[in-house]
Amino acid sequence: MDVLVGKEVDREYPGYSPGLEGIMAGTTAICYLNDDTGELLYRGYSVSDLVNASYEEVAYLLIYGRLPNSKEFADFSSTLVKSRKLPDDVSPIIQQLPTNAHPMDVLRTGVSLLGLSDSTLQDSSKDAKMTRAIQLVAQMPVLLTEFNNHAHGLRSVKPDGSLGHAENFLYMLLGRKPDPKLAKIFNVSMVLYAEHELNASTFSARVTASTLTDIYSAVTSAIGTLKGPLHGGANEGVAKMLMDIDDPSKAEAWVSAALARKERIMGFGHRIHRKTEDPRSVTIKKYAKDLGEYIGETKWYDICFALEKKMSGEKNLYPNLDLYSAVIYMLMGIPIELYTPIFVCSRIAGWCAHIIEQQENNRLIRPRSIYTGARSLKYIPMEKRK
Amino acid sequence: MDVLVGKEVDREYPGYSPGLEGIMAGTTAICYLNDDTGELLYRGYSVSDLVNASYEEVAYLLIYGRLPNSKEFADFSSTLVKSRKLPDDVSPIIQQLPTNAHPMDVLRTGVSLLGLSDSTLQDSSKDAKMTRAIQLVAQMPVLLTEFNNHAHGLRSVKPDGSLGHAENFLYMLLGRKPDPKLAKIFNVSMVLYAEHELNASTFSARVTASTLTDIYSAVTSAIGTLKGPLHGGANEGVAKMLMDIDDPSKAEAWVSAALARKERIMGFGHRIHRKTEDPRSVTIKKYAKDLGEYIGETKWYDICFALEKKMSGEKNLYPNLDLYSAVIYMLMGIPIELYTPIFVCSRIAGWCAHIIEQQENNRLIRPRSIYTGARSLKYIPMEKRK
Repeated sequence: MDVLVGKEVDREYPGYSPGLEGIMAGTTAICYLNDDTGELLYRGYSVSDLVNASYEEVAYLLIYGRLPNSKEFADFSSTLVKSRKLPDDVSPIIQQLPTNAHPMDVLRTGVSLLGLSDSTLQDSSKDAKMTRAIQLVAQMPVLLTEFNNHAHGLRSVKPDGSLGHAENFLYMLLGRKPDPKLAKIFNVSMVLYAEHELNASTFSARVTASTLTDIYSAVTSAIGTLKGPLHGGANEGVAKMLMDIDDPSKAEAWVSAALARKERIMGFGHRIHRKTEDPRSVTIKKYAKDLGEYIGETKWYDICFALEKKMSGEKNLYPNLDLYSAVIYMLMGIPIELYTPIFVCSRIAGWCAHIIEQQENNRLIRPRSIYTGARSLKYIPMEKRK
Repeated sequence: MDVLVGKEVDREYPGYSPGLEGIMAGTTAICYLNDDTGELLYRGYSVSDLVNASYEEVAYLLIYGRLPNSKEFADFSSTLVKSRKLPDDVSPIIQQLPTNAHPMDVLRTGVSLLGLSDSTLQDSSKDAKMTRAIQLVAQMPVLLTEFNNHAHGLRSVKPDGSLGHAENFLYMLLGRKPDPKLAKIFNVSMVLYAEHELNASTFSARVTASTLTDIYSAVTSAIGTLKGPLHGGANEGVAKMLMDIDDPSKAEAWVSAALARKERIMGFGHRIHRKTEDPRSVTIKKYAKDLGEYIGETKWYDICFALEKKMSGEKNLYPNLDLYSAVIYMLMGIPIELYTPIFVCSRIAGWCAHIIEQQENNRLIRPRSIYTGARSLKYIPMEKRK
């Protein structure tokens, strides 16, 4: 036997970086992320500026590569509004899924069904992919809310064509027209979640896309990847933690106890944003504070603030986007199991942009693996085996 | 603006390898692949020896990491036989999918549905994952044949508990008990397709698994990835090519014309197997010849043989596993659109082994990307934009 372990791996493969940390896996013109300064650009524009734009404007930017003028924006918005419905052969299946299903599993299955029922799939032109991308941006919130209403026996909420993308989504989630301030902050959170370079879900979408499969396959991969607690699943984890703590004065002791148990504290730390604060977290924190004061419920913000202080001192970790995003969703009264799906409905624009970019200048993503197992074992037929 | 292009990328990132070619993306004890010698081992055993084993024995080896003894094999086989059915809430949905759906889309959706309906999903222990892996190995052929029979209005074929895994699968595909020689060769092809290190679909499964999401999400990613024509979709492409050529004497001229049109010839070339022949291709070729002579139809083999000679001379490319596998499936009378799905039903064991291995020693797979776009663009509100 000839088995490589630990230090031998390091010696034989000096450039090896577990988890591909810091390894360049492709080129992109979609997102610039500077881990020294924390700078984050979508298509060259600072995310701190883009939070003033509507989600659909940012989706246009990500997918088309430039900002729209007023006419282009009006056309794009109108297309999105018209696409806010599911195909006739998908909707009935969503309505018969088990009501206790996790909405992430429903979105993964739903996008796979959208691909299965797309009769234009033979057309692999860039235009056809763009059309599918825009449809997916429009359909994801409908897929989620149709299932959610079915699962909870709520009345069906039809999309409102007079509302913008984020406001309509929040309307369909809550079942009532949202306060304009809530709609604005929800839009901000969708913009912040829209794109983040080669995060695991986007990377999985690009790996899938690199075999020149269809866009639905690649988005389906991304959703299943985002579901994990080390990625999108974290915002649900934050909410559960905040409800468990429940009192700002107990936050510090709670963290100490959790760290003593070697537990991971949700909402803190990020592979890229280590040296500086994540600019998205800085932005969403301000909105979380503002919204808490507006609603008259500052408890969740105060707990996070106490957690932040403690985690900074004890572990030198900054909050990530998931911490204060969870606060915002809690204040809006959104059920916890929909937090990660909202992340999907936001990141969909970034995923689609990456999938199209990958296929326009494609190279199959097929790395190698360091072998650590046995070699040259002799196959002995079963009856002679001990 | 500050845009990196072509040579600038090479200069600024000297270690950059497009498509992660040759980059070590992880460690594995499942598969050893030597691109110098072409040597291919599953868990230390040469694939050339393992073609003498049954598919279920190889699946056991891949998932458990060692060969079973007779008692373990009997238990494992019995579990597989008992698991050859779909859950009550999945089967009816498969039966109502559009009959013109591509079976790959059906498998992707079906596995996603299996995950959605698994009520044990909270249990993320290794044992629970192993149980799900074994169920998936057993269920994939049932998922495929249930849909195929529905799509073509064929009578439902119930699994036969007296038949081994490959033979039962072929029985369900054909609707009749297969000749033992066909069953044996089908088993060989399943063993050869069962595993191949960090191919794109397995890699996408590991990227997905690395967020600690569930095994169904990771397998769903893998299926969508395998669908692409640069990966599993190739064996369907080979069959279409062979039927287009249809006559061994026309093969050489056909290739010349296709190469003049700069077309990719399906069934040739492989990123890893460049310096030597793919040992799997060497093996399957012998069986393809044997089967053609046994059945009395040598045309497809003869076309491939002529193609091989021409491609070796013109392009210095070896055939890959897909070339002669397609011949075998054609000779067995299997519908072309089921070739890539058969690849899924074979590779499922390798995928599951990799997913479990990834999560047992996990590190989030999150690389970086070289930014080639514009920087520091100034956001101007829409009404002021030209």
